[in-house]
Amino acid sequence: MSTGKQARPKARLPRGFRDRGPEEIAAERRMLETIRAVYESYGFEPLETPAFEYTDALGKFLPDLERPNEGVFSLTDDDGQWLSLRYDLTAPLARFVAQNFQSLPKPFRRYQVGQVWRNEKPGPGRYREFTQFDADTVGSSSPAADAELLMMACDALEALGLKRGEYVLKMNSRRLLDAVLQSASITDLQRGTVLRAVDKFDRLGEAGVRALLGEGRKDESGDFTKGAGLNEHQITLVMELLTASADRYETMTAVEDLRDMRNILAANGYGEDRVQIDTSIIRGLEYYTGPVFEAQLQFPVTNEAGETVVFGSVAGGGRYDDLVARFSGQPVPATGISIGVSRLLTAVRHRSEAALSPLVIVLSLDDIGRSFAMARELRQAGLRAEAYVGTKKFGDQLKYADKRSAALAVIEGADERAAGKITLKDLKRGSELSKAVESRAEWLGERQAQVTIPREQLASKVKEMLSHG
Amino acid sequence: MSTGKQARPKARLPRGFRDRGPEEIAAERRMLETIRAVYESYGFEPLETPAFEYTDALGKFLPDLERPNEGVFSLTDDDGQWLSLRYDLTAPLARFVAQNFQSLPKPFRRYQVGQVWRNEKPGPGRYREFTQFDADTVGSSSPAADAELLMMACDALEALGLKRGEYVLKMNSRRLLDAVLQSASITDLQRGTVLRAVDKFDRLGEAGVRALLGEGRKDESGDFTKGAGLNEHQITLVMELLTASADRYETMTAVEDLRDMRNILAANGYGEDRVQIDTSIIRGLEYYTGPVFEAQLQFPVTNEAGETVVFGSVAGGGRYDDLVARFSGQPVPATGISIGVSRLLTAVRHRSEAALSPLVIVLSLDDIGRSFAMARELRQAGLRAEAYVGTKKFGDQLKYADKRSAALAVIEGADERAAGKITLKDLKRGSELSKAVESRAEWLGERQAQVTIPREQLASKVKEMLSHG
Repeated sequence: MSTGKQARPKARLPRGFRDRGPEEIAAERRMLETIRAVYESYGFEPLETPAFEYTDALGKFLPDLERPNEGVFSLTDDDGQWLSLRYDLTAPLARFVAQNFQSLPKPFRRYQVGQVWRNEKPGPGRYREFTQFDADTVGSSSPAADAELLMMACDALEALGLKRGEYVLKMNSRRLLDAVLQSASITDLQRGTVLRAVDKFDRLGEAGVRALLGEGRKDESGDFTKGAGLNEHQITLVMELLTASADRYETMTAVEDLRDMRNILAANGYGEDRVQIDTSIIRGLEYYTGPVFEAQLQFPVTNEAGETVVFGSVAGGGRYDDLVARFSGQPVPATGISIGVSRLLTAVRHRSEAALSPLVIVLSLDDIGRSFAMARELRQAGLRAEAYVGTKKFGDQLKYADKRSAALAVIEGADERAAGKITLKDLKRGSELSKAVESRAEWLGERQAQVTIPREQLASKVKEMLSHG
Repeated sequence: MSTGKQARPKARLPRGFRDRGPEEIAAERRMLETIRAVYESYGFEPLETPAFEYTDALGKFLPDLERPNEGVFSLTDDDGQWLSLRYDLTAPLARFVAQNFQSLPKPFRRYQVGQVWRNEKPGPGRYREFTQFDADTVGSSSPAADAELLMMACDALEALGLKRGEYVLKMNSRRLLDAVLQSASITDLQRGTVLRAVDKFDRLGEAGVRALLGEGRKDESGDFTKGAGLNEHQITLVMELLTASADRYETMTAVEDLRDMRNILAANGYGEDRVQIDTSIIRGLEYYTGPVFEAQLQFPVTNEAGETVVFGSVAGGGRYDDLVARFSGQPVPATGISIGVSRLLTAVRHRSEAALSPLVIVLSLDDIGRSFAMARELRQAGLRAEAYVGTKKFGDQLKYADKRSAALAVIEGADERAAGKITLKDLKRGSELSKAVESRAEWLGERQAQVTIPREQLASKVKEMLSHG
């Protein structure tokens, strides 16, 4: 490989993507394990579908229809067929169920966790790749299936450390929305625009949504979004849905599923403190046909800049009875809930500091083989330990230990080796001093945070020192 | 959403992709946890980079250069820049290191596990999406860094249950290959073709590689691959590298790193039974500059069809000192090893049957709320339990329990409820009979595999029955 002849590429991340480091990865791993344990205890089993689906199989259900590629990363395969990266885990599930219907238990209950990709405009905290954790019950039209997902979501959030009152699951029904749209004589053509408008209620508020239902709205950047063109009477009927109390709709047949769900939930102790009917909940995806739900946090969340932010939903879902029928023509009722893992992690991360266990670094001055052997001995004692494999410079090795936030360093100089001894240095206690130290002689001069011990006491003494830290 | 008006899409997987079910997912999860624990104990910390990189940042180092898109899935972003899905985890690491060089410890040691995508021709057992588990040390030119990766790979394979002698790590040096190519007067232009030819030695054998080094080779399907056009003398020199004993090259300076590595490994007890020099090991990726390594299994592997197959490498890697310099111009030595998780899983899956814990299904005949409550009670006792949420038909519920391979069913009929009782049915013992059963009366007629107990003994009695299973 030749370098330098051609122009060098710039090392940069694609827009809307990011790298993630040890702390976030460890925190996410614990979160996924916790949700997984709850979902498996409910009898849901894992499924994995690939990142790619045929574009026609995935369908076009994203709310962000204004963009030319409709929010999806797509490309053509060698044989000319269009492939798309999944934008959620529900559309691939519908494909899987349609493809394997005969062999599946009915209902089919699966969970899936994985990355999804949205080809959307990136913004602060808004990425084009994120993690979702979904659970779905396919093949049951019973409101019990929807209610169970809400109970399971409550259990998962509480297993993650959220307390009663810190979150609430809100539910509504697309059938209620449809009934209101019908009573307002809103056409099928206007439906999509209306749906996208009302879904922005929590972000834009009443005035913003009113504008989007009417002529249109200019945002802060000056971009104009064309509205649905409804008249004042129509707008009023739709706005009532977003702002009036749920009681207003209590007797409508469109909400009977919600009433059933509420009764089942109440009978299981999931009362209004955890699950509420809220007629302003819409959900953006077009494929919902019945109950829709959303989990919201009830406490202030601070972002990385330390600012308190309005935090949207951390989970959402609903019933999508027509999605499998897209393929088979046969109706297959289905309902699911999706936890936005990346979002939820942002909200609850500060709650548990999750670290790797303390790191021991064995310096290597002349004989790396002996350093490796000591590191191995420490690992066999259950510790996290490594021998330094970089340069032979003492200063480099100290800087490295500092950058790694190592808890303890092990050193075996030639004199020590001859005497069968090693030195252990507590880097936490000695860190203030060692910043100014450049030579081994200086370093060994600070005696207060170090001990010299017989070589054979390596593991036991390191364990003892770490347990006192 | 309207269905049926337009043509229905066919529910199918894209070519070269696949769905994965509970057993494989559970087995892979355990495998990843095991490797992770070993790597973390060595002081490596996790990093995650996104699925996408800018195409120019990723570079073109795949061996499969004949294909028009060079093995990578690529598309253009809104702003016209080309994006590619990562084809390995090394090229993104080089980008990450170049981008964050100042703030990283030197050396920088990270592991990363994730999906990679190759836009290659799919075949049996050859997929376009698979999982890799990488560990790399960036910023050390010491052979100790390479040797450490081999020790760590040995430890990981043994932690996964492989016994001494069931695997071997083989190592070679690209510098030796370069020395031989130079002595044979092979030009830079021919180098790539020669490299791809010798990398196919294990699959094509001596005759196949000779053909590819000379005029070219026609494969079984009749496709012709143009050769490197070497003369007989040149071919002989190259073939010696693949077939002669490593001793032949023992004294060459090009292999001094291998000698150092062997000494370090031997001093740590990793002898020839685990790590061997093998001059036929080449590795396909173009970016290697020094030692290259490969883990091979030494036992016969049977595929899903029960046939014994020749199993290639399950891990590979090497030193790639120029990859970061592509961005920065500054040389940054680096070395890494990658475990092909999907391949390794295929090879060792049969060794440990990994199942979810037994499933208890609470049938639901009339009151789903009570069924949910029983399922919750069982979960709180640490069991995996679900209430049936499908139809009310008894036959459907039994079929479901059978398809799910449930261990035990719980039933509370109206009479039982009045008497404060429930029935537990051992589905394993009763499964033969229940296949012929359609009605609840019949089902309750088979008494040998069921008990009727007081409702309050639910959890304790279920636990007892499961522990006898």
